[in-house]
Amino acid sequence: MDDFELFGNIEQGKNFIESMKSKRFLFSFVISYTETCEIPGITFAGADRDSIQFTPPADAEYLHYGYCKTIDKIPMTPDGKPTPGLLTKTALESASIPHLTINAGSKISPQLPFVDTGMSFGKNISTEDAMTDSQVSHAVDYGRIVGRSMASLTDCLIIGESIPGGTTTSLAVLKALGYDAKVSSSIPNNPTELKNKIVTSALERIDSDHPYSIVAKVGDPMIPFVAGMLSSASSVSNVMLAGGTQMAAVLAFAAKIGFNEENTAIGTTSYITNDKSANFTSLVSKIADIPAISINPNLENSQHTGLKAFSEGFAKEGVGAGGSIISSMIKTGNDSTNFLEIAEKEYRRLFTLL
Amino acid sequence: MDDFELFGNIEQGKNFIESMKSKRFLFSFVISYTETCEIPGITFAGADRDSIQFTPPADAEYLHYGYCKTIDKIPMTPDGKPTPGLLTKTALESASIPHLTINAGSKISPQLPFVDTGMSFGKNISTEDAMTDSQVSHAVDYGRIVGRSMASLTDCLIIGESIPGGTTTSLAVLKALGYDAKVSSSIPNNPTELKNKIVTSALERIDSDHPYSIVAKVGDPMIPFVAGMLSSASSVSNVMLAGGTQMAAVLAFAAKIGFNEENTAIGTTSYITNDKSANFTSLVSKIADIPAISINPNLENSQHTGLKAFSEGFAKEGVGAGGSIISSMIKTGNDSTNFLEIAEKEYRRLFTLL
Repeated sequence: MDDFELFGNIEQGKNFIESMKSKRFLFSFVISYTETCEIPGITFAGADRDSIQFTPPADAEYLHYGYCKTIDKIPMTPDGKPTPGLLTKTALESASIPHLTINAGSKISPQLPFVDTGMSFGKNISTEDAMTDSQVSHAVDYGRIVGRSMASLTDCLIIGESIPGGTTTSLAVLKALGYDAKVSSSIPNNPTELKNKIVTSALERIDSDHPYSIVAKVGDPMIPFVAGMLSSASSVSNVMLAGGTQMAAVLAFAAKIGFNEENTAIGTTSYITNDKSANFTSLVSKIADIPAISINPNLENSQHTGLKAFSEGFAKEGVGAGGSIISSMIKTGNDSTNFLEIAEKEYRRLFTLL
Repeated sequence: MDDFELFGNIEQGKNFIESMKSKRFLFSFVISYTETCEIPGITFAGADRDSIQFTPPADAEYLHYGYCKTIDKIPMTPDGKPTPGLLTKTALESASIPHLTINAGSKISPQLPFVDTGMSFGKNISTEDAMTDSQVSHAVDYGRIVGRSMASLTDCLIIGESIPGGTTTSLAVLKALGYDAKVSSSIPNNPTELKNKIVTSALERIDSDHPYSIVAKVGDPMIPFVAGMLSSASSVSNVMLAGGTQMAAVLAFAAKIGFNEENTAIGTTSYITNDKSANFTSLVSKIADIPAISINPNLENSQHTGLKAFSEGFAKEGVGAGGSIISSMIKTGNDSTNFLEIAEKEYRRLFTLL
């Protein structure tokens, strides 16, 4: 797999890639929400501020139907750059990897069958606690149940997420747990200053070093839920955390509640691992002794500006794109040239559709 | 498998049993509700009239946790006979068969992660239409989506249901679709007269022979949803409809929307196939060319009156008990003697627990 770059526990990463060839994969798509994303300038996930809340359910609908139901178009940036879900959908379909949607605190429910967890969205951490401690316990407990069920149905459970503004809450959780984190963003000129201002004010509310209390005060619902999934799923099957900074925050919290490192890998795009404004790979190796697998989908070679954009730093990751591409290549043996071809086909389908 | 009795397409039934040995099974538990069950004397599912609505979510919670959250005890008859879910739970656990709960119109949501379908409960068919035509379309569409997803994760999808009063709506649908059905009941002295009175008045509202319209007027939400599951799942994997009369109604409606008979079997208990007040096996063979597999769990040999009761006609079937026992025996090679042993162990655990 020449398209992959390995970091962290490289030996385990090689074994994972080898042992998963033509095995069964299942993609679980966790949608959630934090009101932190409503702070102007914090995210590009959604054409405008009001539409941000529709992005997670719309991503779920696009993955499933190939079009959205809660909004007219597919999620895209103000200037029409498509959701990274395009890469996820292409990857999953090309490898016939089934997927399930889990609502872990999305403000809006998707218009398709989904796993309900009874969770509510997170509050804006710049002004108040994200959740109560008992909401965090509920998220972990339900995450454990869902993770166990889904892992029992596959050889490798891929976990992706969609939570606008999630890199900011992840930054806060990582710092509160003692990691010197610099996080990526869906915006090329990462609004680092704004994020740090929000995080600093949020961290002031922390009055306990108990991980549940930390996530309750400065995190978001996705983090404890996916950490719960990881903790149970990694004892049953392999788990691929599909994402960048946000999955690093999941990993940091999961390290506190316990999970099986030997069955866990994190997969993302080279746009995250090469992001100079962040420190993803060194961060991951500080948190856990697991492999980080990075894929370069070579989108800079695309004839379509909307796909090129990913390689230029727009929406570097999301909807589990990186981990899905990696998983699909492991399962099918496809390389990034095959992948670019089918991604461009999907891109053309979408933009003639719209 | 000497404990099995085969009806209908016996050859296909033998092949199914042979080919599924030590294969992967997945149990999907569909909970729903029809206000028809609120008619006094129609069902025994629940200790009293008000508690009936809690029976489907409580069954789901018992299957998952081993105890209930929405009610204090486990679902049982007024005189303390336990839910057939006891048989289902014993069967699934003894064979390590995973399960997922699907809410297809339950009045109360279970306190565990479940698949949400956005469906609402059915109305009392003795006084009004159960659903609108568009609610039936929604049920079929969502059933198709869920069936396809779940079937892609297993070799055999078992479908069980819990909908109090469902035998009456099933009787109405079967008669409206032209079958001379006599249905079983959870009560030894099947209140046939009452059921027929309700069905007759319901049938008077039928003004179209379109199957969607028929189910909308005299059916319940479970029937079109499970029929949708069957239609898509049977094109992907094997499907075991786990139940009696209600699954016959599902089969009759599914025959109208189309499904793959070659991958479909119906599994139930001998308490249904031997029920003189009903005509289950001949009914099934009239509807479709599939095997009906019947299991006699030999509960009359139990030292516990609560388990003996099943063999005496109380709650003959439900929560997919029959199909689950059959599936677990096919997977593990256990016979009914092994099964009775572990069922009695679970019974003792429950009644020391309560």
